[in-house]
Amino acid sequence: MKLATLRNGAPDGQLAVVSKDLSRFTQASAIAPTLQAALDNWDEVAPQLQKLSDQLNGGDISGKPFDASAAMAPLPRAFQWIDASAYMSHLERVRSAKGSKDAELQAERPIMYQGGSDTLLAAHDDVVVPSDDLAVDFEAELAVILGPVKMGSAPEDVADAVRLVTICNDVSLRRLVADDLQGGFGFFHAKPSSSFGPVVATPDEFGDAWDGKKLSGKLQSRVNGIMIGQPRTEVDMLFDFTQLISEAARTRNLGAGTILGSGTVANTHDEILPIGSDGVGFSCIVEARTAEKQKNEKATTPFLKAGDEVSIQFVADDGSSPLGEIKQQIEISK
Amino acid sequence: MKLATLRNGAPDGQLAVVSKDLSRFTQASAIAPTLQAALDNWDEVAPQLQKLSDQLNGGDISGKPFDASAAMAPLPRAFQWIDASAYMSHLERVRSAKGSKDAELQAERPIMYQGGSDTLLAAHDDVVVPSDDLAVDFEAELAVILGPVKMGSAPEDVADAVRLVTICNDVSLRRLVADDLQGGFGFFHAKPSSSFGPVVATPDEFGDAWDGKKLSGKLQSRVNGIMIGQPRTEVDMLFDFTQLISEAARTRNLGAGTILGSGTVANTHDEILPIGSDGVGFSCIVEARTAEKQKNEKATTPFLKAGDEVSIQFVADDGSSPLGEIKQQIEISK
Repeated sequence: MKLATLRNGAPDGQLAVVSKDLSRFTQASAIAPTLQAALDNWDEVAPQLQKLSDQLNGGDISGKPFDASAAMAPLPRAFQWIDASAYMSHLERVRSAKGSKDAELQAERPIMYQGGSDTLLAAHDDVVVPSDDLAVDFEAELAVILGPVKMGSAPEDVADAVRLVTICNDVSLRRLVADDLQGGFGFFHAKPSSSFGPVVATPDEFGDAWDGKKLSGKLQSRVNGIMIGQPRTEVDMLFDFTQLISEAARTRNLGAGTILGSGTVANTHDEILPIGSDGVGFSCIVEARTAEKQKNEKATTPFLKAGDEVSIQFVADDGSSPLGEIKQQIEISK
Repeated sequence: MKLATLRNGAPDGQLAVVSKDLSRFTQASAIAPTLQAALDNWDEVAPQLQKLSDQLNGGDISGKPFDASAAMAPLPRAFQWIDASAYMSHLERVRSAKGSKDAELQAERPIMYQGGSDTLLAAHDDVVVPSDDLAVDFEAELAVILGPVKMGSAPEDVADAVRLVTICNDVSLRRLVADDLQGGFGFFHAKPSSSFGPVVATPDEFGDAWDGKKLSGKLQSRVNGIMIGQPRTEVDMLFDFTQLISEAARTRNLGAGTILGSGTVANTHDEILPIGSDGVGFSCIVEARTAEKQKNEKATTPFLKAGDEVSIQFVADDGSSPLGEIKQQIEISK
């Protein structure tokens, strides 16, 4: 089934079930008022939501037209947002820019950071930044939303913890990364509010494309309508979601509703922008710039400026876009 | 007024008003079901809670005996927990141990990290760690809980954002700090769930001891009943709470219910443990060990082991303990 959180004036919105093709929705707040409430009581609530979803998809409930711009982030505020870095090509390409050091350490264990989760952005919200001279960048990712995970769980014990899957734009202010890391405490100012897709889907929605550990397909990113990248999500993912979850739970329990990001999706190649229709490209601008520097000694792709539009969608192998689209403009805080 | 969150089986507990002397409470869930709900609607809810508090303190409501061990963390899960480092003596003492670098940068702007906030511990909860050979340490801090703060707010604009004050134990696994920082993304595994005091108090509860920016008094920490430190909270606080809040909001809005920690309270001195009754001491073990190394070339104070008890309380200048006590045992995860 697919779920969304609709604006109703309350900080956590209200829960809705969305049809497979994302064309229609029906309110689900009689079953659980919010997505967090559903996740808190998933074993009891999920079958009821599934039944509603079956009725909506089967036509027993006609529903109303689903407008992705009426959706908030699936969890408009979450109790935890952890972003990992599962794709090594991303790390390799940006390492010099970031000043992070230990390649071997990163290949042995996935690294991850604790992100702010009090103001998560909707798929069509503007990305409001303090200034656009901060090297504003997007990062296209997959994200999973979890049920509770016990401290010390092994990867083989956590496959069932993945309740929902969505897409993410982990907005990054590259000019602040070095300061954050030099301070010694890690990412903070460089990572303002992240954005999430208009819907979340249970893993069964993806059929064989979800193997319990990875999701297969392409993650397409465009800036002002021009394709920047479409790497495959199952390729070059050094750590799968079960490994990421286990690592995240190394010294702590994870509460229901934890959002875990894959990190910027990246495949190994030696392309630069613009890419052809079969090109792989990049899921963020800083990687494209690094590739340009390596090939031409000069980075030419600009970072994002006010008014630029970023769009991100996951495309399945049948050409469908089962998670809808993130589509946002960069704006300056007033 | 003073508030607490009482266990009722739900993940966010239920709101209660506690008497000034922490002896009695009355349920407040008819006004707001949870502390987060109160913070979401503070302007409307706070006067109603204040009235209830006045009735409880005036004896118009008899209330029931308040048992601090029945309290959950004030926000058992929060949408944001940011821990700053406002006391430079702490940073100076632990810098070598942590491998963080830039003293000048840290003195210019406060550094802060994003902490996990999905499973915050109650004042009397055990601190469960994966193992006690990870150099388990406590960090005694003050923490404030905020109303909404707009991105880019100046320090002079945010004094009113402080809704509530409490105490905190920012549990740290020192042996994992270097790994976390070497990964390049900052603290993660080294900072499992933090613990908070049994009650929160509005700033007016402290009279002149709260000047809108700092709280004056002593923060006492004991391990197995032995005093480790009692530094003054207003002394050597290089960045006050308004500066910390402004810095936290540099690139982002802060949602209502953000918890912001002062960092480990520390005063400059050249003592080592044990301290006399007038001694200042330390608010964590690693600082005591650093001082021992400097004086005797050998650290002798051990990190925490299973069964050790840590207690923390804020003591006002009249000798009272207006925020109650954190009192926890270290236990190993099974």
